[in-house]
Amino acid sequence: MLTEPGLVTRSERVDAWQVRASMPVEYEIRVCSDAFAPGSTALLGPAAPASGRHRRFVVVDAHVLTLHGDRIRAYFEHHRVDYELHAVRVDETVKSLETAAGIVRALDAFGIDRRREPIIVIGGGVLMDIVGLVANLYRRGTPVVRVPTTLIGLVDAGVGVKTGVNFNGHKNRLGTYFASSLTLLDRSFLATVDRRHIANGLAEILKMALIKDARLFDLLEEYGPRLLEEKFQGSTPRLDDAASEVVQRAIHGMLEELQPNLWEAKLERVVDYGHTFSPTVEMHALPALLHGEAVCVDMALTTVLAWRRGLVDTARRDRVLAVMRALELPSWNRLLTCELLADALADTVRHRDGAQRLPLPVGIGEAVFVNDVTREELAVAVDDLRRLGSEREPARV
Amino acid sequence: MLTEPGLVTRSERVDAWQVRASMPVEYEIRVCSDAFAPGSTALLGPAAPASGRHRRFVVVDAHVLTLHGDRIRAYFEHHRVDYELHAVRVDETVKSLETAAGIVRALDAFGIDRRREPIIVIGGGVLMDIVGLVANLYRRGTPVVRVPTTLIGLVDAGVGVKTGVNFNGHKNRLGTYFASSLTLLDRSFLATVDRRHIANGLAEILKMALIKDARLFDLLEEYGPRLLEEKFQGSTPRLDDAASEVVQRAIHGMLEELQPNLWEAKLERVVDYGHTFSPTVEMHALPALLHGEAVCVDMALTTVLAWRRGLVDTARRDRVLAVMRALELPSWNRLLTCELLADALADTVRHRDGAQRLPLPVGIGEAVFVNDVTREELAVAVDDLRRLGSEREPARV
Repeated sequence: MLTEPGLVTRSERVDAWQVRASMPVEYEIRVCSDAFAPGSTALLGPAAPASGRHRRFVVVDAHVLTLHGDRIRAYFEHHRVDYELHAVRVDETVKSLETAAGIVRALDAFGIDRRREPIIVIGGGVLMDIVGLVANLYRRGTPVVRVPTTLIGLVDAGVGVKTGVNFNGHKNRLGTYFASSLTLLDRSFLATVDRRHIANGLAEILKMALIKDARLFDLLEEYGPRLLEEKFQGSTPRLDDAASEVVQRAIHGMLEELQPNLWEAKLERVVDYGHTFSPTVEMHALPALLHGEAVCVDMALTTVLAWRRGLVDTARRDRVLAVMRALELPSWNRLLTCELLADALADTVRHRDGAQRLPLPVGIGEAVFVNDVTREELAVAVDDLRRLGSEREPARV
Repeated sequence: MLTEPGLVTRSERVDAWQVRASMPVEYEIRVCSDAFAPGSTALLGPAAPASGRHRRFVVVDAHVLTLHGDRIRAYFEHHRVDYELHAVRVDETVKSLETAAGIVRALDAFGIDRRREPIIVIGGGVLMDIVGLVANLYRRGTPVVRVPTTLIGLVDAGVGVKTGVNFNGHKNRLGTYFASSLTLLDRSFLATVDRRHIANGLAEILKMALIKDARLFDLLEEYGPRLLEEKFQGSTPRLDDAASEVVQRAIHGMLEELQPNLWEAKLERVVDYGHTFSPTVEMHALPALLHGEAVCVDMALTTVLAWRRGLVDTARRDRVLAVMRALELPSWNRLLTCELLADALADTVRHRDGAQRLPLPVGIGEAVFVNDVTREELAVAVDDLRRLGSEREPARV
């Protein structure tokens, strides 16, 4: 009687069933030079429906709408789309179930054919996380197309499948894994991102370089400061090539790591590099440190720790620290005390199911996992890092 | 560079990626005679943790707690479990995001190791749907063990992977697909379910019989009224066998249909039998009709419609209607007008992506999908059904 024998099996006890199935997931990430160029159909897909009009519910960061509203509206009007722009003011408190509920109410009022009219989200990582959750929950799954508008959104939040909101004082306490059908990477939005937030995104790119892509590190070393200066706008052909290759390599590396572990069943993740101590540091330093900045402090510390273990030689250690400075990222924070780091590590061990599973760099572009970092080692690394910082930038320590 | 070539592929455009992956899902459904017998380890799993104490957060229907609280508490105390019983009063309004949020707050306060301490839910379909959603969202997925306490929960809600809450006036507007790790089917809870709600569950069992299991229909014809009377408690060896086989066949049939289509990508679902007109009828009749009762009215109508089409002969049509009556289920409702049915069908067509995809019975135990039911045909079926009802039960029409 079984349609697919072996998939629903009754065990030896005649009254128990094991159900096994596999959910296929497929999504696309595409670079495009201007998602809202009138001629571009990337955002809408090629075909208008039989009725002749697309309908789209668009959630957009209110700040992005102020800066780019004209070209966004012009695009939808050019394509004769029946659309609604639902603006969300993104601040510290916005990542909540209430914001998600408000988006659902607006979505219900607008009404969509959930098979043919994907939700569109235009904004940074926080807004993409919220709208991803809304899309997952709305009628048990509605397609969503993402247009990240920050560098960290382009190379990190827009690449994976995590959704979430904060709840009850905990970061991302409620969330899901849900793949957007399409993410469009449009660097033109970066022109209006402030310099510090470009550096913030560069920290996540540097992470990918350090753990798995030596060529990407070379690119950051050679072009990083100019890319920061011109905000990835490709102001010369050479910088355009560099910006394009940096973004592509960062995303490709990230996808290689995510794809075999999309639901994070495996707890040893090289992409967790820089994310062992940083959650605690970031939380204690709020709002002084941005996410990427806290990640960079963690990477500086663990680079020095890896150097003490002989995994990274002195020349490479200094190149790494020099690139961090050149990208205007912090490699030190006054919160780096042995106590705080030991607490942070204990917290991370809890999240990683009882082991450190700490990725450490090996040279530049490779990584290894260790489980035996001691408090004493952390104390030495903190002293090393303070000394290395004060040798070069006494004023900042 | 790719870890698994072909799964992350860069298309001909050097700047686009297709990500493909497969999420494995596995869950178990197990019949047990008394989930809270002191000696049973089914609910907790065999091994206590290293600390020597299990910890469990248990969400329980407040009414069930009143009736079965003593044996539930005694069980956890016998096994020295550090537990919290979070009681939820289940009524019309409870299936909300607010209820889900309240459960999360209590879960945060209790604190669990989400890898080793599954949430437990003891209750009916509504509560299982809410807690399933909470489990999916909590830290992006926390295991949940379900103990359904109603017949419809045992054979329907407890078997599948749908979760959800109502929102903004829409039924299950927000939800997900999330497999519980284990569902324990314990018929002893049915002893305290009122007779009408047992009949309500029998409607979903009858559905499985009509579309795919002639033997199950024979069992309902022979034993149904007595099973209703004794509430599946197995008061004689023969009735115990019958109760056991009826539940097993209903679940097995359901799983055969669900497993290849767990995420409902395929819109032709025989388990949608009885669910074409009933959502509208149920909504208009609220609170007069229970879900299973509305489903039964839909099945009566479509049985007659199938008879007019020559798919079901007169003898079988009458056996079906007789079993409905014997199970104390309605086969007629005054809301059955041609207008309401046409509206209901239009609504279902929208949900089924533009086609009727209407399962109709073929004899007893088989089904076919049709897409061409007309308004005139519905009018004739309504007249037929009214006439058939008045021939037998003039008082009820």
